[in-house]
Amino acid sequence: MALIIQKFGGTSVGTLEKMRNVARCAIQAHENGDQVVMIVSAMSGETNRLLKLAHEIAEVPDSRELDALAATGEQVSAALVAMTLQKMGARAQSFLGHQIRVHTDGAFTKARIRTIDGTRLKETVQEGKIAVVAGFQGVDSRGNITTLGRGGSDTTAVAIAAAIEADVCEIYTDVDGVYTTDPNMCPTARKIARIAYEEMLELASLGAKVLQIRSVEVAMKYGVAIHVRSSFSDRPGTMVVGEEDLESVTVTGVAYDKSEARVQLIGVPDKPGTVAGVFKLLSDNHVSVDMIIQSASSGSGETTEVTFTVNETDLARVKGLIEAHMDSLGGGTSVEYDSDIAKVSIVGLGMRSHAGVASKMFSILADEGINISAISTSEIKVSCLISAKYTELAVRSLHDGFGLDKLAQTNPPPNKQGRKIRQSS
Amino acid sequence: MALIIQKFGGTSVGTLEKMRNVARCAIQAHENGDQVVMIVSAMSGETNRLLKLAHEIAEVPDSRELDALAATGEQVSAALVAMTLQKMGARAQSFLGHQIRVHTDGAFTKARIRTIDGTRLKETVQEGKIAVVAGFQGVDSRGNITTLGRGGSDTTAVAIAAAIEADVCEIYTDVDGVYTTDPNMCPTARKIARIAYEEMLELASLGAKVLQIRSVEVAMKYGVAIHVRSSFSDRPGTMVVGEEDLESVTVTGVAYDKSEARVQLIGVPDKPGTVAGVFKLLSDNHVSVDMIIQSASSGSGETTEVTFTVNETDLARVKGLIEAHMDSLGGGTSVEYDSDIAKVSIVGLGMRSHAGVASKMFSILADEGINISAISTSEIKVSCLISAKYTELAVRSLHDGFGLDKLAQTNPPPNKQGRKIRQSS
Repeated sequence: MALIIQKFGGTSVGTLEKMRNVARCAIQAHENGDQVVMIVSAMSGETNRLLKLAHEIAEVPDSRELDALAATGEQVSAALVAMTLQKMGARAQSFLGHQIRVHTDGAFTKARIRTIDGTRLKETVQEGKIAVVAGFQGVDSRGNITTLGRGGSDTTAVAIAAAIEADVCEIYTDVDGVYTTDPNMCPTARKIARIAYEEMLELASLGAKVLQIRSVEVAMKYGVAIHVRSSFSDRPGTMVVGEEDLESVTVTGVAYDKSEARVQLIGVPDKPGTVAGVFKLLSDNHVSVDMIIQSASSGSGETTEVTFTVNETDLARVKGLIEAHMDSLGGGTSVEYDSDIAKVSIVGLGMRSHAGVASKMFSILADEGINISAISTSEIKVSCLISAKYTELAVRSLHDGFGLDKLAQTNPPPNKQGRKIRQSS
Repeated sequence: MALIIQKFGGTSVGTLEKMRNVARCAIQAHENGDQVVMIVSAMSGETNRLLKLAHEIAEVPDSRELDALAATGEQVSAALVAMTLQKMGARAQSFLGHQIRVHTDGAFTKARIRTIDGTRLKETVQEGKIAVVAGFQGVDSRGNITTLGRGGSDTTAVAIAAAIEADVCEIYTDVDGVYTTDPNMCPTARKIARIAYEEMLELASLGAKVLQIRSVEVAMKYGVAIHVRSSFSDRPGTMVVGEEDLESVTVTGVAYDKSEARVQLIGVPDKPGTVAGVFKLLSDNHVSVDMIIQSASSGSGETTEVTFTVNETDLARVKGLIEAHMDSLGGGTSVEYDSDIAKVSIVGLGMRSHAGVASKMFSILADEGINISAISTSEIKVSCLISAKYTELAVRSLHDGFGLDKLAQTNPPPNKQGRKIRQSS
């Protein structure tokens, strides 16, 4: 017998018919002898419907009221799923954030969970009931309703798994796991059987479609095993686990991101504070900067070149800010913008102990004739900025060049691993 | 400066445009120097939409889950109205049942309020904000969401008025007050300026369209002055107040009810327990019986006749129960049913001290040739059962016969009285 969390997103509970499917899934686990806590999101479209009403009232509605409004979506789902379970013969009870004391900070619309009181959920499952929790919501210290941001139900699921010491946190989605890269981009992409929290965080651009990043951080902190799997099939998906539970491979996945734009400042006076002034300007205006590269000073030693990337959607705003700031950079500075770029990254825990991974990446790209216009690295990631038109070529050649098309053979088959976790308690 | 409650029903907050109207109403009072707490119902149609989903899942959905589901309707309204107030320049904050500790018993779907903690609402209005409370909902001792039954927001409003000692509880509806009788039935019907709680309770069949009966009981218990008024006009409506604040009139209003059906048992053996057996049968099957009349025994002293009324919607069920029970009534008993009947009632506090009111009622009906088939009385009410086709004739002749068409002149003009209450603090 195991204690399992099953989290279902908005698509999985989008209609009453689909609710019967998720109920069947929970009842099956329950009949296998497991204790089940379900976390549900709002029915698909519901959150948008509510937010649309709010935005018809005001361009920037009060965030406290926005949370009180949006939280109703999950409340409706939880009650309806509980009714569905009952109709199908199971005993079930729904719970809201404030009923199981999902206490958060007071940052409306993007709150962070501080504590959860698992007592009532534990009692409920010990009585043989299936507990159905409204995801995405909590309460602050004054009892105000808060929400955890888009995808927040993932974080509710993982935090509850930690609070009640569940054996596994199953996240049901419309894909069947995390892939070595985007299968739409690369036909040899393979489902990853097991991946480390750190890798999952670095693969954000792939993983964001599957898991809220914050949920992975919480899972890492409390050692919660996440099982990302499909709501349409019984097959095991991807286990997101601690490093110690993995045989590390050098490169686990290849990610890409076409949403960035490059800004290049040329002929910037090489004086202390000049470059800092530019980034203070952007930060004061809430523009997030991703990569930053400053070249060595030019021959004369008087000017330098600064390249950085921002999100494409911020580019128009950045242009305005930079133009207005040009005077303070001196007359000789010019600026170039390019939104036709892509960032391609390789991620893997094994990089820490394997030399030459970055240079192998550069060689693979060079062999394909792809020019690299900027590079950034972390302990377990190397990212290269390239021209957008080479994205597919770069992803495919890196994927197969690092042997990811053959990865599945080197790891044990995923179904065995998925089972192991659930039967270990 | 006064502390006022303003309650708006589902029709008044049915669209974002209508929400601007109710916000304007609250802001106006606020600008006049009053402190305002608004109570709002779910947007019209929303509760039915939610219940329909529940009933698609199960014929009889779990009542705890039903309440968690239905309570979202008011939560949405409260948040949207608070946003609307803010957009219009006011400071505002929404509150849910659990946030202001609307503690109820555990009778899901028809809970009764036990206590309310008014502290947070008082703080909010003292800070110069308009508080917007989700009506209809509370929490039981375990923190489960409960609801107060259809029209429950009226009771929320009155109970909050009692908890924070508001000067008046304004109930905004689509009619402009309580009338001496149904204006659609009787063209000389007049708006009642002031009416006693007890009268309002007896006029249930008129008042139910305007006020939840339970809200009048709570108002009577705590001495809360209710002001029933129109959301479409500034004119004062009807004040529902304590008897001591009224000059009592003999007859305040004429009510009618066509929803009952009559059951007549003829030739029932006149033995102890026979009649009791019939009513135990009905009560065991949750059939509410209204009037009961047992005639004197017939000449032979061996049989008697019993007439009673039930709600028309229960009639088919009652027929089945009685037929199955006929054997135990002995072979000589026969039964007749009639759903083509109406109950006409006159209500007034003054009846207690005025003799001859009932006999005047019977004379008025007799003068119109209307036969009375049953009579029941309370201290402040006389009801007669008549043939349904005479309803309009009976209502009109009683209304004018008791001088209700001239009532408005004998009471002070309502606008003075409405003001008095609000300015008395």
